[in-house]
Amino acid sequence: MSTVHLWTDAEAAADPRVKAVFDDIRATRKSDFINNFWRALANDPPSLERIWAGLKAVMVESDALDPLTKEMIYIAVSTANGCSYCAHSHTAAARAKGMTAAQHGELLAVIGMAAQTNALATALQVPVDPQFLVGD
Amino acid sequence: MSTVHLWTDAEAAADPRVKAVFDDIRATRKSDFINNFWRALANDPPSLERIWAGLKAVMVESDALDPLTKEMIYIAVSTANGCSYCAHSHTAAARAKGMTAAQHGELLAVIGMAAQTNALATALQVPVDPQFLVGD
Amino acid sequence: MSTVHLWTDAEAAADPRVKAVFDDIRATRKSDFINNFWRALANDPPSLERIWAGLKAVMVESDALDPLTKEMIYIAVSTANGCSYCAHSHTAAARAKGMTAAQHGELLAVIGMAAQTNALATALQVPVDPQFLVGD
Amino acid sequence: MSTVHLWTDAEAAADPRVKAVFDDIRATRKSDFINNFWRALANDPPSLERIWAGLKAVMVESDALDPLTKEMIYIAVSTANGCSYCAHSHTAAARAKGMTAAQHGELLAVIGMAAQTNALATALQVPVDPQFLVGD
Amino acid sequence: MSTVHLWTDAEAAADPRVKAVFDDIRATRKSDFINNFWRALANDPPSLERIWAGLKAVMVESDALDPLTKEMIYIAVSTANGCSYCAHSHTAAARAKGMTAAQHGELLAVIGMAAQTNALATALQVPVDPQFLVGD
Amino acid sequence: MSTVHLWTDAEAAADPRVKAVFDDIRATRKSDFINNFWRALANDPPSLERIWAGLKAVMVESDALDPLTKEMIYIAVSTANGCSYCAHSHTAAARAKGMTAAQHGELLAVIGMAAQTNALATALQVPVDPQFLVGD
Repeated sequence: MSTVHLWTDAEAAADPRVKAVFDDIRATRKSDFINNFWRALANDPPSLERIWAGLKAVMVESDALDPLTKEMIYIAVSTANGCSYCAHSHTAAARAKGMTAAQHGELLAVIGMAAQTNALATALQVPVDPQFLVGD
Repeated sequence: MSTVHLWTDAEAAADPRVKAVFDDIRATRKSDFINNFWRALANDPPSLERIWAGLKAVMVESDALDPLTKEMIYIAVSTANGCSYCAHSHTAAARAKGMTAAQHGELLAVIGMAAQTNALATALQVPVDPQFLVGD
Repeated sequence: MSTVHLWTDAEAAADPRVKAVFDDIRATRKSDFINNFWRALANDPPSLERIWAGLKAVMVESDALDPLTKEMIYIAVSTANGCSYCAHSHTAAARAKGMTAAQHGELLAVIGMAAQTNALATALQVPVDPQFLVGD
Repeated sequence: MSTVHLWTDAEAAADPRVKAVFDDIRATRKSDFINNFWRALANDPPSLERIWAGLKAVMVESDALDPLTKEMIYIAVSTANGCSYCAHSHTAAARAKGMTAAQHGELLAVIGMAAQTNALATALQVPVDPQFLVGD
Repeated sequence: MSTVHLWTDAEAAADPRVKAVFDDIRATRKSDFINNFWRALANDPPSLERIWAGLKAVMVESDALDPLTKEMIYIAVSTANGCSYCAHSHTAAARAKGMTAAQHGELLAVIGMAAQTNALATALQVPVDPQFLVGD
Repeated sequence: MSTVHLWTDAEAAADPRVKAVFDDIRATRKSDFINNFWRALANDPPSLERIWAGLKAVMVESDALDPLTKEMIYIAVSTANGCSYCAHSHTAAARAKGMTAAQHGELLAVIGMAAQTNALATALQVPVDPQFLVGD
């Protein structure tokens, strides 16, 4: 179904650059499971390395926000961008990080409400209030 | 600049339905400030009442998520939807609820990373892993 | 395939809040059919109640626009937002409300033309003509 | 503010291809006013000719839908696509074609509601009901 | 799965307007294959004619950009718009025009990077530098 | 106008991490000009470093595609994402890399055509032809 080949574990093991990233994904996540996104991205090792390094820096190594909050933000962006794969993968990830059904329900309520008021503000072309502007 | 008239306080005070909503916004937010979004929406009182009631229910009265987390989710959706007004208003709201510069920086890093991997997953048309599917 | 469980009729009948909404959907639409959107939303009863009440107010009880025109507007927004489920459900709804093949063809022509000129206006960053601005 | 030069009337009059399109816009709309979109598009005469011919065919010459309905659909798409210029220009056009304040209010209510349920259907990844599928 | 009937070759052959377009697609592409997009669009012959004529003018007859570059631009837009069908069809088309795996990898890297910086620029509401503005 | 402070040259010079990135931008681009995007991103040095490193790797150091083609792809994505700042900055960048008026006109024609057929394919929910699928 994808527009590229999905790399098998055997293929990944045979390419040092891909193998190194897959190994780090497994070690970081403490799980043997490599999801299809990485198997698709493996077709371009420089992108695989750069995207994984960026994702790890932002989602794992940074700590101004807790991991569950970051997964919920990821779901929000993925929904607004209409990414089916990402809605599935990050909803699963948020659940694995402890998202309750009540939190999921409220997350979706916020996403839906934001989509609605975004549309209204755009249709109305509301001018930004001076109170919202930063000083410079 | 807007596509509709922005209601002044005097105009709002003269319409019972608009006045009731503006009064409730002020009481709920404990502030006299009514931002332009509501002044534009006042042109259609049924929408003004429904949107405010919905926003209040989701953002103020529900409590499965804390208020700052919900504002950050709002920023994430507003950004992905390209809503300039909303990016301004909800960034200001998140700061008023205590968002630090470090949290803002990390929020934006997550938003940017999600936009990037959303695009890659869509371009690659990655099939959803069976592990991400819910049982039914 | 969904990210949440889809409620069966038996499950809905056992939850008073969900049952009340499903009953009202059936009475309002004069049909026993409850489509999957509501079966998914049932996981969060407050959202189920609020979204249905809003949809009924806007799509059924308001009458400044006729029902078919509103369904076509819904298709237009759903298309621009890339919502596959919504394109299917609202095209079916528009047909049920009498949309002819000729109207469907012209609706799609308008949607496509708008998408094209939207993109051009954005790429060109065309400044808004003063003639289009509202007085205040 | 635009990314290209906006053609003046004098410049347009000196280029036969641009002049022909501007003349036809004026004759079709029975107005001397040429809005900035066309003045920006004039930098590429083949596009100017093709886009105007397409817009005229869809918005003026086709008649399965009435002109006001088509303008409202245009506003809906422009809003979902976040096109500021287009929200302004097509709201003005809809008003010129008779859109009342009540119709505008209800149009925006439908657009906002659709944006909200689009987001929810995407976040929930609701599977399409078999009843919505066309036969082949 | 589509919202309309997909025209078979037999049906297309029986409608002079559809037949003429299908014949021209086959002659232009030097291939007997007509992909589903055109079989769906055939339900509205005026749109079928107009869209094909536009696509041919822009993608085949114009030559300021080479055909492969134009297909890659098409993939970029299709990805940002979340069009699953288009991502598939234009990736296949780009490969048929010689896109290498290295070019595909870099194309996706650019698309992903642009999506990321687009989101950041929107969230930050960065003001346009005067140096980027065109003279008028 | 931005949602954050824009760093001046003096402020950037006083922060080693920001200074190092600004120095590298200037050296890489062989220009003293630092555009506002980087002055806004400077509020979060880790993001500034990561985004600049990624952009440099993709847009400068990779060479499967030529620099102008990559800028045009950037314009295409930025347009589809509705990013005003990005449309301005990357149109300027493409011109600086030699984009002619004819190439710009054709680029916009492709972007507009893609936006139109994306919308049609989504509204029609066209099923992917088996011919477009990759083997696994």
